[in-house]
Amino acid sequence: MEDVKVFGLWSSPFTQRVIWALKLKGVSYEYYGEDLANKSNMLLKYNPIYKKVPVFVHNGKPLAESMVIVEYIEETWSQMPLLSQDAYERSNVRFWSKFIEDKSMQMMEFFVYDGERQERAIKETLETLRVIENQSGLNEKMFIGGNTIGLADIALGWVAHTLPVMEEIVGVKFITTDAFPNLHSWVKNFLEIPAVKNNLPPHELLVEYYREKRKVFLAMAFHHHHRH
Amino acid sequence: MEDVKVFGLWSSPFTQRVIWALKLKGVSYEYYGEDLANKSNMLLKYNPIYKKVPVFVHNGKPLAESMVIVEYIEETWSQMPLLSQDAYERSNVRFWSKFIEDKSMQMMEFFVYDGERQERAIKETLETLRVIENQSGLNEKMFIGGNTIGLADIALGWVAHTLPVMEEIVGVKFITTDAFPNLHSWVKNFLEIPAVKNNLPPHELLVEYYREKRKVFLAMAFHHHHRH
Repeated sequence: MEDVKVFGLWSSPFTQRVIWALKLKGVSYEYYGEDLANKSNMLLKYNPIYKKVPVFVHNGKPLAESMVIVEYIEETWSQMPLLSQDAYERSNVRFWSKFIEDKSMQMMEFFVYDGERQERAIKETLETLRVIENQSGLNEKMFIGGNTIGLADIALGWVAHTLPVMEEIVGVKFITTDAFPNLHSWVKNFLEIPAVKNNLPPHELLVEYYREKRKVFLAMAFHHHHRH
Repeated sequence: MEDVKVFGLWSSPFTQRVIWALKLKGVSYEYYGEDLANKSNMLLKYNPIYKKVPVFVHNGKPLAESMVIVEYIEETWSQMPLLSQDAYERSNVRFWSKFIEDKSMQMMEFFVYDGERQERAIKETLETLRVIENQSGLNEKMFIGGNTIGLADIALGWVAHTLPVMEEIVGVKFITTDAFPNLHSWVKNFLEIPAVKNNLPPHELLVEYYREKRKVFLAMAFHHHHRH
């Protein structure tokens, strides 16, 4: 029958995109947890270019890049569509998916630095959230581009679950009802979807994991700063 | 009937992606040349997020982001398909399209800097070209993912026409038959497509344009370097 494998990391918001898409579609899969300090030969074989999770393997054929995988899942299993039938609506959602994808690493920078660089990063994260808040249509719809969960919502999913972990550790709060009412409602809507809600890593474990990660990031940033 | 407008810049490799896709499909359009120093109200209205060319407007509905536009064109006009019918092949081409899109600005950095930063940028451009040379299937096929021009080739198109201009001005040469035989053949195959060949800005005008651009980039890099 169908042979579907996911190579992932339990704490990775990019791995979660793939899991959510599969759960939404009701596709069963085998999950292989990777140790990033000691990557499996399978991971290196299937993703020689980036050597990163997530990797998706369908009947022996590998794919990398979380949003490319999600779009493959969308095209392969038609139930619970993540894109409209209308070409313009599809492209609008793809625009937002790309916008979010392009900005995601930058939006996480406040978590990687401290001091002046962190202040700058916080400002940039706020600016990006402001664009999504005001221009992605969330003032009219429950999700980006419609009233059901779609491709761009899956791209943004980490903002609902991983961002609050990073905020808690750093001691900031971006998405409040006052500052971002549309995004605040979106977070609520997103987390109510059973395929999402029932497939999230436990908050407390994530806090513990990212607290250690932040120490490493700060040490790297310090080292980098003093080397140049 | 169909009302298709393109807001672009004659020298922009991103605008050219949209033009090539429309010409390949035989879709007529009205072209509006933008002056980036004095952007039109139409451009600002249609692309409030990036305020950049290209912008595509179909029957009054605007789209931004060159590769999102090309995929919309692909889905709207089915003649001369730029993506396979096979979901895995489609996703493979989307992977390469994203890889190229994500790396394009970085691949142009050798043109923006000089000295040590330029040397570093040249190394990075070579590494990216090496990945495309060896892993995108160009050893077996005329184009990325097949023997006809597709989405990823359109993403890479600037390497066939704008990169040589930048190389000429800087005095480097990346794509030779010895160093990158597959890419060298790809450039030839790409430039032989009538929709491409007949819709390229004149080489000499581009050299003149980018020579001025490089002066501005170097002055900016100098200013930036000395400010920090």
